[in-house]
Amino acid sequence: MFNEKMYRLGSKRSTIREIFEYAKKRSAEIGAENVFDFSIGNPSVPAPAIVNQTIERLVKETPSVALHGYTSAQGDKSVRDKIAKNYTRRFGAALSGDDIYMTVGAAASLTITFKALTCEGDEFIVFAPYFPEYAVFVANAGAKLTVLPSDENMQPDFTALERALNPRVKGVLINSPNNPSGAVYGEETVCRLTDILRQKSKEYGAPIYLISDEPYRELVYDENTKVPCIMNCYDDSIVCYSYSKSLSLPGERIGYIAVNPKATDSKAVYAAVCGAGRSLGFVCAPALFQRVAAECDGMTADLSVYKRNRGLLYKGLTDCGFTCVYPDGAFYLFLKAAEEDAAAFCEKAKKYELLLVNGEDFGAKGWVRVAYCVQTERIEKALPLFKKLAEEYGL
Amino acid sequence: MFNEKMYRLGSKRSTIREIFEYAKKRSAEIGAENVFDFSIGNPSVPAPAIVNQTIERLVKETPSVALHGYTSAQGDKSVRDKIAKNYTRRFGAALSGDDIYMTVGAAASLTITFKALTCEGDEFIVFAPYFPEYAVFVANAGAKLTVLPSDENMQPDFTALERALNPRVKGVLINSPNNPSGAVYGEETVCRLTDILRQKSKEYGAPIYLISDEPYRELVYDENTKVPCIMNCYDDSIVCYSYSKSLSLPGERIGYIAVNPKATDSKAVYAAVCGAGRSLGFVCAPALFQRVAAECDGMTADLSVYKRNRGLLYKGLTDCGFTCVYPDGAFYLFLKAAEEDAAAFCEKAKKYELLLVNGEDFGAKGWVRVAYCVQTERIEKALPLFKKLAEEYGL
Repeated sequence: MFNEKMYRLGSKRSTIREIFEYAKKRSAEIGAENVFDFSIGNPSVPAPAIVNQTIERLVKETPSVALHGYTSAQGDKSVRDKIAKNYTRRFGAALSGDDIYMTVGAAASLTITFKALTCEGDEFIVFAPYFPEYAVFVANAGAKLTVLPSDENMQPDFTALERALNPRVKGVLINSPNNPSGAVYGEETVCRLTDILRQKSKEYGAPIYLISDEPYRELVYDENTKVPCIMNCYDDSIVCYSYSKSLSLPGERIGYIAVNPKATDSKAVYAAVCGAGRSLGFVCAPALFQRVAAECDGMTADLSVYKRNRGLLYKGLTDCGFTCVYPDGAFYLFLKAAEEDAAAFCEKAKKYELLLVNGEDFGAKGWVRVAYCVQTERIEKALPLFKKLAEEYGL
Repeated sequence: MFNEKMYRLGSKRSTIREIFEYAKKRSAEIGAENVFDFSIGNPSVPAPAIVNQTIERLVKETPSVALHGYTSAQGDKSVRDKIAKNYTRRFGAALSGDDIYMTVGAAASLTITFKALTCEGDEFIVFAPYFPEYAVFVANAGAKLTVLPSDENMQPDFTALERALNPRVKGVLINSPNNPSGAVYGEETVCRLTDILRQKSKEYGAPIYLISDEPYRELVYDENTKVPCIMNCYDDSIVCYSYSKSLSLPGERIGYIAVNPKATDSKAVYAAVCGAGRSLGFVCAPALFQRVAAECDGMTADLSVYKRNRGLLYKGLTDCGFTCVYPDGAFYLFLKAAEEDAAAFCEKAKKYELLLVNGEDFGAKGWVRVAYCVQTERIEKALPLFKKLAEEYGL
């Protein structure tokens, strides 16, 4: 009577949603101030003031029909030109507005890209830990997702990659800074990765695309943490960007796809992106927020709270004896469960009102994700509880 | 190397886009005031003042993290509740917020609905003339689209429908007021249609869904033109709505799907809608405009311009001797080409600087679409040119 797969996708609550509901219930029982919810990756800092200022200005200055009217399917030309120019200035990769396709956020960037690239029998590769919706998006395009392991520093397992590559692999998807681990792929990692892809592309006589999901691009906290520009490292690359985290606008759904102009037949790939966007029902990205994005591109919300939270949490947890991946970016910390069964570990944490997400949902057994996009005071109050949890495990 | 179908979809210019480019070129040659572009279905009246007032108020009053943050995937609960309540008040069909799923506009409403319903081998039926993107959206779900004829008044050919129905037909898609013909399905048409669907659903032992695409619902111009509420006429119905035309907000991409709570297993159908939305990459509808929609639901831009244009154009064209469908709604007039070949007719019209769209793109051979969402003055100036065109045909 309806599509069973879609029914299951729509009726199965995600773990994070389960925790969200539990947090609501538990807050009603013991007071919200006593529940420490580290489950949700929702920006906790306001959008920079320029966002609302730009909205107010545009609404005042622009005739309604122009402001709220259709833009071209790929996005308003002046918006794309501005973002491309800024990209070129910031990263040195020469982009034009015609390489950019404005989207309704990162999820749309990804479903469109997968749909644009996928031919029958195609396969995409991702490294664990990874954002679980990737599997949904790849399945929507009719492709297969192969999950490969990472090492303890959450860098790709290159031996596994070389073994897994085959002529049906259409692309490798990376996400750095990473959700859920906070790991960043530095230049060395990216070079090693792209060397392999270049060699294999040559061997197979067809490009293996490098798809870079970059909603956390600006969320890095140390001077010496550099997020390499993928466009400069590998020609057959597609960048999927979203303003959700950098500008704290996750609900407004605005982002873009940038097709590397140096990619093989890049104009045709861009056309396939346009076709996929049309096919999936994205007529154009929201018009007002396209203009807001162009105006605020490259700016960020005040990320100092995340930096403070990261330092506090990492030090606090390692002082307790926990093993953590040092999070170079994003707003997640990956914590090794103090017992083999991470689900049991999360349950024990719950006794102390600490709500964590089992890393198994991200393809990483034995780890849990701690989202630190919260008020700093929540972390300060939670650390003594983490201490008790550590003591229970005799750490 | 990429998906050929998507490449073709993205690189083939639509006829309307072709005309748009021609109009630009021609305007540069002879001045925009001398080119009469009736090709584009873009609202020509501003959004009602309350839209921008609501945006400004929300931006001022709502904390940024709440205003621009994620809503639940199906849309903010209070938004859905408000729209449902209003729907119930306006149309008498009892909806709750949990029957409504907020979308990124009508196209998204449709791709999600088709994806939610389609099982392997399924088929959807639509009556010509129809919006050509329907074919793209149905194909995206992996279903087959069957196009059936309408009569001279652009009402369904019921004999053809009865012949075409079979157990693989998952749904019938209607669009009233209609793009491109402006026709409205009155109560008699809807009753006859739903009687057939009810009988066939019973015969096959499975519901045939009636999917009602209603972006033009509020765009009717006569006291006695009633657009029946599909929810009240047929249980297994799904309404796909968009605020693009009623509020003149086509670029902002905001609409909803309403699953009739009286539909067979309506909660499961709703869950499949949620799953399809997730699968296609719609995380949530744009947050700010969800709230604007809730605040302005049921209101409209000033539609009196369209009414005036319709009257002027219909009288003018019939006075010239052209045969037209009387447009009860939307902002399109369907004109019978004065020769068999509508493409040749459009070319002749071009000589008088009149830009019309061949109805063949909408599955209606021998007709052309005249979009009258333009400044009234354009119609006044165009009518003498239509007169000359008519004279060329000896009308």
